[in-house]
Amino acid sequence: MPELRKDPVIGRWVIISTERGKRPTDFTSGPPAKGGGFCPFCTGNESKTPPEVFAYRKPDTSKDSPGWWVRVVSNKFPALEIEGELNRQGVGIYDKMNGVGAHEVIIETPDHDKSLSDLSETHITEILLAWKQRMLDLKNDERFRYILIFKNHGEAAGASLEHSHTQLIAMPIIPKRVSEEIEGARRYYDYKERCIFCDIVSQEISDDVRVVCANENFISIEPFAARFPFETWLLPKKHAPAFEDLEDAEICLLARLLKETLARLNTALSSPPYNFILHTLPCQGDNRLWYHWHIEIMPKLTKVAGFEWGSGFYINPTAPEEAAKYLREISIASATK
Amino acid sequence: MPELRKDPVIGRWVIISTERGKRPTDFTSGPPAKGGGFCPFCTGNESKTPPEVFAYRKPDTSKDSPGWWVRVVSNKFPALEIEGELNRQGVGIYDKMNGVGAHEVIIETPDHDKSLSDLSETHITEILLAWKQRMLDLKNDERFRYILIFKNHGEAAGASLEHSHTQLIAMPIIPKRVSEEIEGARRYYDYKERCIFCDIVSQEISDDVRVVCANENFISIEPFAARFPFETWLLPKKHAPAFEDLEDAEICLLARLLKETLARLNTALSSPPYNFILHTLPCQGDNRLWYHWHIEIMPKLTKVAGFEWGSGFYINPTAPEEAAKYLREISIASATK
Repeated sequence: MPELRKDPVIGRWVIISTERGKRPTDFTSGPPAKGGGFCPFCTGNESKTPPEVFAYRKPDTSKDSPGWWVRVVSNKFPALEIEGELNRQGVGIYDKMNGVGAHEVIIETPDHDKSLSDLSETHITEILLAWKQRMLDLKNDERFRYILIFKNHGEAAGASLEHSHTQLIAMPIIPKRVSEEIEGARRYYDYKERCIFCDIVSQEISDDVRVVCANENFISIEPFAARFPFETWLLPKKHAPAFEDLEDAEICLLARLLKETLARLNTALSSPPYNFILHTLPCQGDNRLWYHWHIEIMPKLTKVAGFEWGSGFYINPTAPEEAAKYLREISIASATK
Repeated sequence: MPELRKDPVIGRWVIISTERGKRPTDFTSGPPAKGGGFCPFCTGNESKTPPEVFAYRKPDTSKDSPGWWVRVVSNKFPALEIEGELNRQGVGIYDKMNGVGAHEVIIETPDHDKSLSDLSETHITEILLAWKQRMLDLKNDERFRYILIFKNHGEAAGASLEHSHTQLIAMPIIPKRVSEEIEGARRYYDYKERCIFCDIVSQEISDDVRVVCANENFISIEPFAARFPFETWLLPKKHAPAFEDLEDAEICLLARLLKETLARLNTALSSPPYNFILHTLPCQGDNRLWYHWHIEIMPKLTKVAGFEWGSGFYINPTAPEEAAKYLREISIASATK
């Protein structure tokens, strides 16, 4: 069973996931070998993954067989384990609990060579609907405090399999960055009686120098204090605390803007490795007035030196205004067909 | 002039350093070319760096000429600029100020092929004395709130020049991780009337499962909630808020333990790329009772996925107890000669 441990000074939880099994000697021989051609996420290899928990598939096909176009399975090497009690306990001054959680993989397409932004709007809509369905289902488990959806695209961004997929981790703690956002947004609300993210959207529309693209309901911006070159956030224009509350019609519009945003980044930066992460409301607690869900996309263009993790202090060599202008003006006619 | 900008939600400052000049097109052509043999940090090339601000050198040699063995110069491509007023201002809901600060490089040796842990204890002592001297000097500048010392070793850890060096950035803000530590340590002190770092040292000595090595005054441990495999912290055993207050005799002992710690990591992990960062007391404010300086060493063994920056949630595949056991037991006889 993996273990969740809390840093006693700053309160950050980490997973000590010894089941994933990196012994000291595993680090001495360079990067791991590539998969050698076999891909468990390709059609026909359904038996090589844990059983399917959700799929969009042709009506006459059965679970764990071909015929799907979006498929959700448990992670074969989960960071957290689904069975067990939390068993919170102290160890002297330290705190730990069992690494209980869910770790799932949303396989975005049966086609090994397609990336997320290559897929049609309808297809991306179904991927987002799969996220929503899994989140709503897992929120029923009272052990979980947060459901994190994220994507590692490209080896440099930490993807261990190149076949396009998103990951979901349901966990018994709230990740530090999300707690910080909630705390900051609550303080702002206490003072202003407005959602800070709504104020950001409003100022960005008015300034119009960091907007990348937008539609009726959603907007993509380069944030004012971006940590990384071409860091891009995608937000609902109107106040909306939780992604999983989105109506299906809104999800179509979100899929359209996500596709356009990724197409602009891919065209501008020659399909860079990237990560994105969905920040939504925690499963419990009353933060609906001040929290506002969003997606943070981080192209992996520069090496992040360890000192940046160690200090929380980032040096960004590209002004967000310059990145936004470039992304806005680039032609993506062929990419969004 | 670079700009410091504050994230309006979580309050993190970033440097938007456009003088360093990454335009969108600079990212499209893969990693930058290597230096091609010329190294501005080697003896004989003193004229290729900004003027020397401090050095250990032979008595009959002059500034900016050979004869030094530790040499401190301003960074030729500084992230912050030394001249100017802070000029704090609001931009709608956002906050920014001029990117005023100092950015220096401590060239650790004239020998291009030596790394920090290859140097003698006496030599490492002088490097640490150079850190201390520069910190004490820069603390006289009232514009600065924090002086950050860090090292990027190896290209994968973000080093742009391979010649062994440490960097120093004096900045008008306190980095987020340090404020979080101060806040956490202050809360613990309010409750317990003890320093949390002193309690950590005490529990680590008593548990004796995460200690890597120690001497009379200092201890190296794998922290209980380590984010990365083989993450290693080096702390003074007795309460000590600021690195720059160390007596010279203590610095000798610190140099000895730093050398041993790096030798153990290098032997265990085949000289991995790594970062370290010195967390010391901010220039102003009264945190002496609860803050306790330390060095955090982070070997770069796994790819940190962007989602880990985006969530503050880390998955560490190696238990700190296992890493500590390995580092403690490995033979470094030849490495510490």
